[in-house]
Amino acid sequence: MDVAVAPIAFSGSHIDRADHIRNDPAALDALRTAQARLLRMDGLDPVLTDDSALAWGSLADASADSELVFLGIAQGVDGEHGCFAEVPATTPSGGPHAGPASWNAMVVLESGELAAYGTARALVGWHMRHRFCAVCGSPTALAKGGWQRTCSNAACKSEHFPRVDPVTIMTVECEGKLLLGRQPRFAPGQYSALAGFVEPGETIEEAVKRETFEEAGVRARDVEYVISQPWPFPSSLMIGCHAYADDPAIVMDETEMDDVRWFTREEVTDALAAVARGEQGKAFGAPPKAAVAHALLRWWADRG
Amino acid sequence: MDVAVAPIAFSGSHIDRADHIRNDPAALDALRTAQARLLRMDGLDPVLTDDSALAWGSLADASADSELVFLGIAQGVDGEHGCFAEVPATTPSGGPHAGPASWNAMVVLESGELAAYGTARALVGWHMRHRFCAVCGSPTALAKGGWQRTCSNAACKSEHFPRVDPVTIMTVECEGKLLLGRQPRFAPGQYSALAGFVEPGETIEEAVKRETFEEAGVRARDVEYVISQPWPFPSSLMIGCHAYADDPAIVMDETEMDDVRWFTREEVTDALAAVARGEQGKAFGAPPKAAVAHALLRWWADRG
Ligand SMILES: [Zn+2]
Ligand SMILES: [Zn+2]
Repeated sequence: MDVAVAPIAFSGSHIDRADHIRNDPAALDALRTAQARLLRMDGLDPVLTDDSALAWGSLADASADSELVFLGIAQGVDGEHGCFAEVPATTPSGGPHAGPASWNAMVVLESGELAAYGTARALVGWHMRHRFCAVCGSPTALAKGGWQRTCSNAACKSEHFPRVDPVTIMTVECEGKLLLGRQPRFAPGQYSALAGFVEPGETIEEAVKRETFEEAGVRARDVEYVISQPWPFPSSLMIGCHAYADDPAIVMDETEMDDVRWFTREEVTDALAAVARGEQGKAFGAPPKAAVAHALLRWWADRG
Repeated sequence: MDVAVAPIAFSGSHIDRADHIRNDPAALDALRTAQARLLRMDGLDPVLTDDSALAWGSLADASADSELVFLGIAQGVDGEHGCFAEVPATTPSGGPHAGPASWNAMVVLESGELAAYGTARALVGWHMRHRFCAVCGSPTALAKGGWQRTCSNAACKSEHFPRVDPVTIMTVECEGKLLLGRQPRFAPGQYSALAGFVEPGETIEEAVKRETFEEAGVRARDVEYVISQPWPFPSSLMIGCHAYADDPAIVMDETEMDDVRWFTREEVTDALAAVARGEQGKAFGAPPKAAVAHALLRWWADRG
């Protein structure tokens, strides 16, 4: 799937990252004008206007003790604007998962705007969790327009970069059916594709096979890449794959999973259609439209 | 490319990660026997036996002040062994890149053994760089067999997980030629595929397009995934892609690149063949066999 054909949620930002400016303090300063825009956020949550767009203010709205992250350059009707987000001096409460405000934004925001919010959320959240140097424990300071933090200890000076965690998420097919599972935290009746973080020392394909075996006891083969998605809760790169299995026998991981089952193409097609109506399918509830798992299920249902 | 058909360097470890044991202190203790194996390392470098295998010792060889990482379970002729690596209390010198000992290991080690070393190196290196909590600056301690570090500050208790950095690396094709570049640190005449870290807020495909445009001024389209590779210098997940361009005009990033050029299929084929002879090709020097860029060039040359 080319993202140009089927934009996945959180992709397709209209903001030009203008990476070269990050390393150019003078160019960065030149963008900090009255025309520059500051993304309004409520902690890490999005703030929307009455007509469901991202709310932007000016740099004057930033607290004096905040750090500023340079998101890039946007084209407005009145020319170019530097776009920034604010890292508050105190970290707001709230977990890493998407809350109601974020789920609402995934439904109502234009896709490019959602991508801009996702980038800001991932970056600002990373800054909040990296105020200290993991190498030596000293305070760090924002550098390169927010695309780096640098250790303040002159004997260390370690440079730290925003973290992106690759996660494999996979549909596995056997005898024309699809393997899906539900975690204990899912709403009743909800099932999704199995998923797990890529670990040091493994390929994407090895991670898919390991996770499928760990969570479901199913041996996957012939892994193929389908689609990717940045998922800023807090900093995942979802790598969507499809694979095949020869033996449908399930041995579920009881600690991670609540249930793992095979679903027919009819059941998957029905569950996807139900999402569009705001309902749960006959056999199960499919993932919401913005989740990469939804795109994976759609991809599989459409090739039947 | 299925890794089973064409094993890429650092994939295909024979050690079973046995993830469930990480969360089970009693099971982990039960593996710390006289039969358990400790991977011998020289700092982060591999230590090889006279017949070019990984050198293993016993847990008795570990320093009293070291932390131990559980790599998994290996099957020996005399049954199962827990496999461990040591995180020394003092961090050895040395940069993140592969040194001569690692490059030698890529040539002489059996692929499964190289994968075991790569996993250990990535993990041990991560522990060394994360002795402190990035959230609050307090010391961290190894947890879950080395697949986590936990903050010692009772008011924080943040959990930190081994980092894996997704990197896109891509061959771009236009008018039957391939776009390759050389960084200033490359040996004379060496060219490789362009590459760059995936940033927060972008898909794999967006990262490929951004990096290609930044480094070469070339607009890529129709990105397809080809192969992935864990690259433990220090913790990359290389995501190998191929893409197309319509306009071959190059505008090179002078700060990042020394040269960027288009090469014909004949030139690429010749350069790959030369690597096998330990020579440089007529037009350029291709990446070494263990690099994912070599596999990408081979993939493209073979489909001609
Ligand atoms: Zn430091
Ligand atoms: Zn802490």
